[in-house]
Amino acid sequence: MNVVLADQIQHKIDFKTKPTGALGMLEKLAFQIAQIQQTLTPELKKPHIIVFAASHGIAAHAVSAYPAEVTAQMVLNFLNGGAAINVFTRQHGIALLVVDAGVNYDFGKNEKLIDAKVGFGTNNILTSPAMSAIECDACLQRGREIVGDVRATGCNVIGFGEMGIGNTSSAALMMSKLLDLPLEDCVGKGTGLSDEQMSAKLAILHQAMQNHADLDNNPLRVLQTFGGFEIAMMCGAMLEAADRGMVVLVDGFIASVAYLTAFRMHAKISQHAVFCHESSEKGHEILLRSLNATPILRLGMRLGEGTGCAVAYPVLQSAVAFLNEMASFESAGVSNKVA
Amino acid sequence: MNVVLADQIQHKIDFKTKPTGALGMLEKLAFQIAQIQQTLTPELKKPHIIVFAASHGIAAHAVSAYPAEVTAQMVLNFLNGGAAINVFTRQHGIALLVVDAGVNYDFGKNEKLIDAKVGFGTNNILTSPAMSAIECDACLQRGREIVGDVRATGCNVIGFGEMGIGNTSSAALMMSKLLDLPLEDCVGKGTGLSDEQMSAKLAILHQAMQNHADLDNNPLRVLQTFGGFEIAMMCGAMLEAADRGMVVLVDGFIASVAYLTAFRMHAKISQHAVFCHESSEKGHEILLRSLNATPILRLGMRLGEGTGCAVAYPVLQSAVAFLNEMASFESAGVSNKVA
Repeated sequence: MNVVLADQIQHKIDFKTKPTGALGMLEKLAFQIAQIQQTLTPELKKPHIIVFAASHGIAAHAVSAYPAEVTAQMVLNFLNGGAAINVFTRQHGIALLVVDAGVNYDFGKNEKLIDAKVGFGTNNILTSPAMSAIECDACLQRGREIVGDVRATGCNVIGFGEMGIGNTSSAALMMSKLLDLPLEDCVGKGTGLSDEQMSAKLAILHQAMQNHADLDNNPLRVLQTFGGFEIAMMCGAMLEAADRGMVVLVDGFIASVAYLTAFRMHAKISQHAVFCHESSEKGHEILLRSLNATPILRLGMRLGEGTGCAVAYPVLQSAVAFLNEMASFESAGVSNKVA
Repeated sequence: MNVVLADQIQHKIDFKTKPTGALGMLEKLAFQIAQIQQTLTPELKKPHIIVFAASHGIAAHAVSAYPAEVTAQMVLNFLNGGAAINVFTRQHGIALLVVDAGVNYDFGKNEKLIDAKVGFGTNNILTSPAMSAIECDACLQRGREIVGDVRATGCNVIGFGEMGIGNTSSAALMMSKLLDLPLEDCVGKGTGLSDEQMSAKLAILHQAMQNHADLDNNPLRVLQTFGGFEIAMMCGAMLEAADRGMVVLVDGFIASVAYLTAFRMHAKISQHAVFCHESSEKGHEILLRSLNATPILRLGMRLGEGTGCAVAYPVLQSAVAFLNEMASFESAGVSNKVA
């Protein structure tokens, strides 16, 4: 770490015309972004959000309130511009990319869709590993490549979203294994299960955990055993974005589990991560706490797709803007604090 | 209330392509704004933030970490575009108006400043009422007039900020009296007092409360006795904005006390109020809870100036945008929840 620059950034923040610390989290964000970019005048350039979509074998077990075919239908909704993430990225001038990481549907040729299909959905994790080691590696690799292409456009801030009916089940199993927490702390109602359906989901996931009893907490093995193609690809994408010096926007529960996996592989990713919101999906609060992460927004959202990243994005812009544009006590002729 | 329209709004929200309720507070905001505007397709037009500035006699007693002259200096900073509120309103295309409600400084003629000066600061509330009944009425009236002028431009969403060294003391006394709460629950460190300075502030405010022991909780009398010119003007402005059917953005601690006063005068204002953030100033959390208000942001900000309104504004825009732009299950051909 460049200690001199860090001091200069903090000094610049502290001598803006406001009480010390009065912009709260905006000041922490400004400091972090300036540190990532190693400059006193950071800029957010060509923001992107990438949504990775994939199908899940476990979805056959009624672990979601919605039928499995919704994954493909929502991909088409993204491509047609009608989903929440389309609305929020349009609002903030964020470029949106949609990736078929492994949806159980043939989209044909579509220039708006990035074809990174590793398979037609993962295996059923109740009885099998989600994917082979080769598939898992392909996901990490494709995630990295896609981010590399985005970086080449000049983008320096990137968020990640997902679509995959059944993927809160994958994420809950991964979280439970990686953090050594009881499944009860990690399993939530997802898209909106009833209490009864939720009990059934929990029972299925206990069974899945038992059927993979010899799994240790190695992040790569956990990812391969319980992950989804979209989760694994997001994990690779986050690692690449951090390697390339980008600001990494972390969305809700699924994205945070992908982040946790990436963090277990390379801890330095944490310097690049901005936690955009706290989802109302059970497990996310505990996960954020375990990561020592303070989310920007707490709006009770639980939609995925990267919507938390998009809605939080203007707060990052505010952080950068005050650092670059506000007057200092000296430049404005304002008296500072009484000693 | 138009029950049919309310049902239609909720139906429109529920049949967007997302799990029911998955946009959390965005859904509540969309519903409220649609209700205020009595339409299924609400719009936010010509947003404005008005900053009211005034000096406080109590500032002579070292109740603030900053000297009293900072009030006038910050007004000049607003006019020169260098303050936090300038940065955030520019960012979001919000028109910013600055009002001299009663600063202890002669700004001369300045076309960027709205001259509504009621006096050169309030009396010292330790020993006297802050203002006369005539002054208090003039503040309410001028606040209403300024909002009337803004409404005439086509604006339908308006936020209010303040600048006034010493005004957390005014606001704490008002809150304590209006809510019948001990001063300890209402007094905070303002712009950043030390623990010792904070004890001294609390002692002075206890003395002020004792010196006005016969004051009841009538909102107009509380405003006249403990208020500031900026607080009273903001109170009138909020009442007018609600009367005119506008969305009213409520900022932090001072603005929320102005809102509480206005609410005690006309409870129907609550249908128009959007609470933009929870300040880290002690008292604000309790005040919001007593108002049954859920703030949009909790960023640990405590700057005033309307900065919470400005930083939260894009979240309101997101709420309106999803309601107007997202596809429905039917239009997108997406399967809805399994029965």
